Amino acid sequence: MPGEFDLIQRFLACFPRARVPVGPGDDCAVLAPSRGALCVTTDAVVEDVHFTRATFSAADIGHKALAVNLSDLAAMGATPRWFVCALALPRDFPARELSAMGRGMAALAKAHRIMLVGGNFTSAREVSVTLTVTGELSHAPLTRAGARPGDLLYVSGTLGDARLGLQHLQAGVRRGAAVKRQRRPEPRIALGKLAARFASAGMDVSDGLAQDLGHLCAASRVGVELELERLPLSPAVRAALGPEGALRGGEDYELLLAVPPSRMQAFERACARAGQEVTRMGVLTRERTLRIRDAGGHLLTPPAGFDHFTRTGRQIRPDD
Amino acid sequence: MPGEFDLIQRFLACFPRARVPVGPGDDCAVLAPSRGALCVTTDAVVEDVHFTRATFSAADIGHKALAVNLSDLAAMGATPRWFVCALALPRDFPARELSAMGRGMAALAKAHRIMLVGGNFTSAREVSVTLTVTGELSHAPLTRAGARPGDLLYVSGTLGDARLGLQHLQAGVRRGAAVKRQRRPEPRIALGKLAARFASAGMDVSDGLAQDLGHLCAASRVGVELELERLPLSPAVRAALGPEGALRGGEDYELLLAVPPSRMQAFERACARAGQEVTRMGVLTRERTLRIRDAGGHLLTPPAGFDHFTRTGRQIRPDD
Repeated sequence: MPGEFDLIQRFLACFPRARVPVGPGDDCAVLAPSRGALCVTTDAVVEDVHFTRATFSAADIGHKALAVNLSDLAAMGATPRWFVCALALPRDFPARELSAMGRGMAALAKAHRIMLVGGNFTSAREVSVTLTVTGELSHAPLTRAGARPGDLLYVSGTLGDARLGLQHLQAGVRRGAAVKRQRRPEPRIALGKLAARFASAGMDVSDGLAQDLGHLCAASRVGVELELERLPLSPAVRAALGPEGALRGGEDYELLLAVPPSRMQAFERACARAGQEVTRMGVLTRERTLRIRDAGGHLLTPPAGFDHFTRTGRQIRPDD
Repeated sequence: MPGEFDLIQRFLACFPRARVPVGPGDDCAVLAPSRGALCVTTDAVVEDVHFTRATFSAADIGHKALAVNLSDLAAMGATPRWFVCALALPRDFPARELSAMGRGMAALAKAHRIMLVGGNFTSAREVSVTLTVTGELSHAPLTRAGARPGDLLYVSGTLGDARLGLQHLQAGVRRGAAVKRQRRPEPRIALGKLAARFASAGMDVSDGLAQDLGHLCAASRVGVELELERLPLSPAVRAALGPEGALRGGEDYELLLAVPPSRMQAFERACARAGQEVTRMGVLTRERTLRIRDAGGHLLTPPAGFDHFTRTGRQIRPDD
């Protein structure tokens, strides 16, 4: 296996040279001060927790590691700026796989105009990719805490596809739209920037709608009444998981948005103009509970989301 | 084991509340724009690569993870500002150990006034702690690239202690100054800020003096003539490793500085006033080779440094 320095060069070669005062290769990168406030988040993908090397290509891993981080920037309405990449790789990790990982990451970085400015390599027993990404704000951040009772609840795209894709991969199916959603989530950067002009609160859906909705409601001190039949589902997810499976979802990387009724029309029009798909699926309530109604108007018991540690997750009552 | 959210709370409770527009708990932290340029670096400590759980307490791991990152800020002459912490922990990692790790990290964070603004938890087979830290510059950054032939070469503190400490730990010795240097390196933040006013180039010594000196020389396109008997060694290191062992060192986390002759006196005086120990140990040369002379004036073959991947490291000839 080549030395650490060769690996670094091989990985960096996938990315354009960062246009910053000091780029990769010194003790730190140096970046010009930002004009707006800076959003920062860190997230990792770990072998056998977030992916397996049997079902993800190295390019998939590179893409997904950056996508899950960009999704957090999207959730704040931020414009991506720069990121650093900490790689932990087994000693026998093939150098050509490292290049593939770099290319998978670089393609997504290019699409969202975010610069790699630094990183770190270490050996480890399992593959893990830990990124820290930043974005700049030209407006107030879209936090989880600003929603009010009466605000309308939206979600982008469709839910449950990534979960279905995981089931497909586990069953040996390696192709199809659901598998692509699992391997190559697309962060909703453009929608986040648009939504920041209208929404009172927002977050990305990474742990499953039910669980993440609980977080938004807790932060905003509101409850929610969700209409199950309004959940946006692809035909495949409707058939395989149904709305209740999609609620548990996980790894959707869609945006969950609360919009005041007074801005509803303008928001929906702006989304339509921008080609952004959003679906209204409920309303926030003063009573701090999560109520889910099925098509017949019956109240359902909210399911738990996914929690890496307990597997059973925690209950999603916002007033817990 | 408690859920992910309880773990996050337990870890965060060790740190003071970050005074930023949006702190931990939302999709991103939000930070006010910096006045000066921002330095950023990311570094990880991984179980069985950088520490073992048998020889490091959780508090040691927390301290060291932050220290190795702060050392990179010190090397740029930056003032620490904020950091994010990505933790990967086995499912059976005890919650009380997590608190201990947080306390170890928080004590060092407090000493250097750096704020924890966000983080991430994931499960993994082995413990790893990946931090991204930033610092602000009120002056030009101290890079590796600014040294000129004729500049004098300095190093802070003493060399080889951390390596000796590792040998002690491997031999079952759990106490003493060398072991402390291995477990609890002290980043040279104050010296870095002082040195930025005088030095033409600087970096931290993390891979061993010989190897890191090669990096500085390569970046500055200079060579070096090093006087072996001038290396600052503790009596224990002199006895156990000698200067040649200290050259290979590793994990010293001291600062390597190049200072133009015209600023030598002012630099040494400023260090003395500030209580910062630095030792002049060589001079940079136009000829791009690393020459090491022993006390008798004989030329030695430069040893290789430490490389996580190849173990044998790469040759340290700046003109490679």
